[in-house]
Amino acid sequence: MPQGKVAVTPDDGLTTRQRRRQAVFAVHTGAGKGKSTAAFGMALRAWSAGWPIGVFQFVKSQKWKVGEESALKALDGVNGTPVTWHKMGEGWSWIQRAGTERDHAAEAAEGWAQIKRDLEKESYKFYVLDEFTYPMKWGWVDVADVIATIKDRPGTQHIVITGRDAHPDLIAAADLVTEMTKVKHPMDAGRKGQQGIEW
Amino acid sequence: MPQGKVAVTPDDGLTTRQRRRQAVFAVHTGAGKGKSTAAFGMALRAWSAGWPIGVFQFVKSQKWKVGEESALKALDGVNGTPVTWHKMGEGWSWIQRAGTERDHAAEAAEGWAQIKRDLEKESYKFYVLDEFTYPMKWGWVDVADVIATIKDRPGTQHIVITGRDAHPDLIAAADLVTEMTKVKHPMDAGRKGQQGIEW
Repeated sequence: MPQGKVAVTPDDGLTTRQRRRQAVFAVHTGAGKGKSTAAFGMALRAWSAGWPIGVFQFVKSQKWKVGEESALKALDGVNGTPVTWHKMGEGWSWIQRAGTERDHAAEAAEGWAQIKRDLEKESYKFYVLDEFTYPMKWGWVDVADVIATIKDRPGTQHIVITGRDAHPDLIAAADLVTEMTKVKHPMDAGRKGQQGIEW
Repeated sequence: MPQGKVAVTPDDGLTTRQRRRQAVFAVHTGAGKGKSTAAFGMALRAWSAGWPIGVFQFVKSQKWKVGEESALKALDGVNGTPVTWHKMGEGWSWIQRAGTERDHAAEAAEGWAQIKRDLEKESYKFYVLDEFTYPMKWGWVDVADVIATIKDRPGTQHIVITGRDAHPDLIAAADLVTEMTKVKHPMDAGRKGQQGIEW
């Protein structure tokens, strides 16, 4: 299909201009690298477009995106576009709760509850829900609720969800789905994670 | 394989620490979205690590990464890390040549010649060779020369090449290869490229 040509013209009563401005819901899944990295790359484009960005990182792990976080935070407000970063695990930024036992399921549910509030308020125009497939996979967050909330979100709010094993219903609901497939990884040759590349 | 565990320990006489500091050569290929986007996401990490970044964009098209360019340029020098952006098509930054006929093959070859000079001089620590698979595919740049140059590059210079149809020899030579597979794209449903998402 040539660049820019669409396969079908939808019978939705919208002009091309209106369709261009529809909100996009994207999913990056698969076992390969680049799912989150591409989501943060998309955030660069959103930043350039002046869209307030909200990042919600689920799953505390070696996978903390330290480099992306410091770079995107360095962009916060530079052109007037705010970048807000929330992390589960270390404690969501809107909850201060020191010294208590961690309950990952409850924290994930709280994260999702906040995202719902933000979508309702249209707090951001671009959302990265990083590694959000896992809380769904583990039953901490209800997939049907996620899909219904995203489907009914007001205004023009773009969302990208990353993580392996995206639920089939989530894939069915998304506008844009890319599967990152691992062809080859340095670890296969005995090389461990490398600074600046892996984190 | 658990996170951080390697399948084999290579018999290369290096310590894990030394191996972590080896230069990485990555390829993002496949027909799906996210190849370049993930490369620019990697650049965020490189920036955070303080690595000078050189971006070389091949193939002038609707695909100019306008948003990524302005965001990464906004990061240029902010933490002391330079970001340098070169484009074919509009004229490489090191060549000023107004009003002449365009010769895309020659421009691609000039781009690659500059990259070779930069690798020799260790001008950058992180290189994005964006859509560089195409000049190789079209015979404008010799794949064997690219592979030999990358293999013999001095110091610790990380490289990511993006584009569809990466040559099998290039894939064989790379440390890290991810294939982005299109599962679903808004154009399939008649939606054209959307501002902030596609560019």
